[in-house]
Amino acid sequence: MELCHGAGGRATRQLIAEVFQAALDNEWLRQGNDHALLPPMQGPLVMTTDAYVVSPLFFPGGDIGRLAVHGTVNDLAMGGAQPLWLSASFIIEEGFALADLQRIADSMGRAAREAAVAVVAGDTKVVERGKGDGVFVSMTGVGCVLPGVHVSGDRARPGDVVLVSGTLGDHGVAVMSGRENLGFDTHIVSDSAALHGLVAAMAARHGPALHCLRDPTRGGLAATLNELACQSGVGIVLDEAALPVRREVAAACELLGLDPLNVANEGKLVAIVAEEAGPGVLASMRSHPLGREAALIGTVVTDAQQLVRMSTGFGGERVVDWLWGEQLPRIC
Amino acid sequence: MELCHGAGGRATRQLIAEVFQAALDNEWLRQGNDHALLPPMQGPLVMTTDAYVVSPLFFPGGDIGRLAVHGTVNDLAMGGAQPLWLSASFIIEEGFALADLQRIADSMGRAAREAAVAVVAGDTKVVERGKGDGVFVSMTGVGCVLPGVHVSGDRARPGDVVLVSGTLGDHGVAVMSGRENLGFDTHIVSDSAALHGLVAAMAARHGPALHCLRDPTRGGLAATLNELACQSGVGIVLDEAALPVRREVAAACELLGLDPLNVANEGKLVAIVAEEAGPGVLASMRSHPLGREAALIGTVVTDAQQLVRMSTGFGGERVVDWLWGEQLPRIC
Repeated sequence: MELCHGAGGRATRQLIAEVFQAALDNEWLRQGNDHALLPPMQGPLVMTTDAYVVSPLFFPGGDIGRLAVHGTVNDLAMGGAQPLWLSASFIIEEGFALADLQRIADSMGRAAREAAVAVVAGDTKVVERGKGDGVFVSMTGVGCVLPGVHVSGDRARPGDVVLVSGTLGDHGVAVMSGRENLGFDTHIVSDSAALHGLVAAMAARHGPALHCLRDPTRGGLAATLNELACQSGVGIVLDEAALPVRREVAAACELLGLDPLNVANEGKLVAIVAEEAGPGVLASMRSHPLGREAALIGTVVTDAQQLVRMSTGFGGERVVDWLWGEQLPRIC
Repeated sequence: MELCHGAGGRATRQLIAEVFQAALDNEWLRQGNDHALLPPMQGPLVMTTDAYVVSPLFFPGGDIGRLAVHGTVNDLAMGGAQPLWLSASFIIEEGFALADLQRIADSMGRAAREAAVAVVAGDTKVVERGKGDGVFVSMTGVGCVLPGVHVSGDRARPGDVVLVSGTLGDHGVAVMSGRENLGFDTHIVSDSAALHGLVAAMAARHGPALHCLRDPTRGGLAATLNELACQSGVGIVLDEAALPVRREVAAACELLGLDPLNVANEGKLVAIVAEEAGPGVLASMRSHPLGREAALIGTVVTDAQQLVRMSTGFGGERVVDWLWGEQLPRIC
């Protein structure tokens, strides 16, 4: 990549046509304007955005292009929405290999097609060598709220139960294992996946019972549950024995001095649901391919301090705090 | 800024609350979820995205925060849409001054309020020192098509006239003058402005006559007209004497070896309109504060080669090509 690829002239035009339009092709992108004209939408709109700065760009089980689609689709799904339209902006470092950019764009296109969403708008800028790091992607998603679903981080109530859709920490450990300087190797691959199908399956049978949905990405389960506890003004009590963590992930975390509860996931969701619907929602999750290892991991309690606590067996308990410092930079 | 500010833990939370929520405050951002739940929209949706990597971050007449809002609002306006919702993603280099981030967020918030749009979703990532350059912003906008307006880059027809809303090259020259290493000084300030009010004024009286709207940003007027000629399969003939260029901008361009036609604008639009409506649209533009120096600069012609040509007086003519190489890196 050279600076001229981001200058808005003929080289930019050619890059867009040859790399991005081919990889992401759809009728809206093909309009060729600086905006996409899209059909009207039924119902309330949901909008979300994320920057992706993951390092390395290619890691076991995924890459930055695929991760961006999954992360954005999931933020929409966690808003109870059907994901529809995505936009992608690329900030590329001068000297970055065109073949790698092509691979990322192709992977992004594939992930979008699998998730039945379209990347309808994009932009490319190139910065000088040493002013970026390969490529950064920012992705925004727009979707439409599913009928009968009203989820929000402030809707957890004492008595609700806390469910997680599968094993914790796979993404973070996979990305760390892709960093050469750490010199460790596992067979763990990222769990990167689009969760809107799982949410639709849960919502179809238990829509009104779903109070909160959130994907425990950066900061892991610990950050997500602390956020939800703060937003809802409640406490949460977890049962350590119920937390699904792969043996290899637990071992890698021990090696790296990490707690799996702080490690990022990219294909898991946390659901806080009405107590009486708990078993039913859990069954719905387990009958979906992306929720086979779902588990009921805790309950919501009254707590003016809004703490997340974990019972550790034999009557022991510890507070699950979110991290203050940086443990896993550039994990997504 | 430290890496922990992007780690998703307590420091991220505090940064968002203290810097971004305060600066950009609105009821949708205040929902505090990873997505914004927005009201339903009437009519077809328009979506656009851009990355902003301008250097320096603060330049005469603007900064990256204000520029992002204007650039995004303008891309929606050029789609014939009423801009409604924006999202902002920040990629920040470790060590960047928090005070500068605050200044950028405040400026972004001010520009959004002035333009009556809301930044409803955001994200912040921090990368290691030397892997970024201060701050990069990606912004996405969503809007709703104005009734009776149908503009697209492929709608220029032979006989149509080409209008521009004001002087050319101000933004690019202002940013260049902000680069210390160039050692030149002008009184030129960026023309950075939100143009949706101007478009609404044009559309109110002449909606169906508006065929193409586009803002000549990166690549300048030359790139924009070449894009439109290609998309519509037509040629364009410009009258050099009619092009509005400030004397100081012309002088600075000469000093820097630039052609004002290739220099970016951030508060100007090009309109291609039906011939008979030309004088009326021009009058509408001139009666708006952002179109006072509007001019009729050319006509659309039949040309299988889709060339943009310029008559240079005394019967002379030259082809106005878009640039192949890089002339002005990181101008927006």
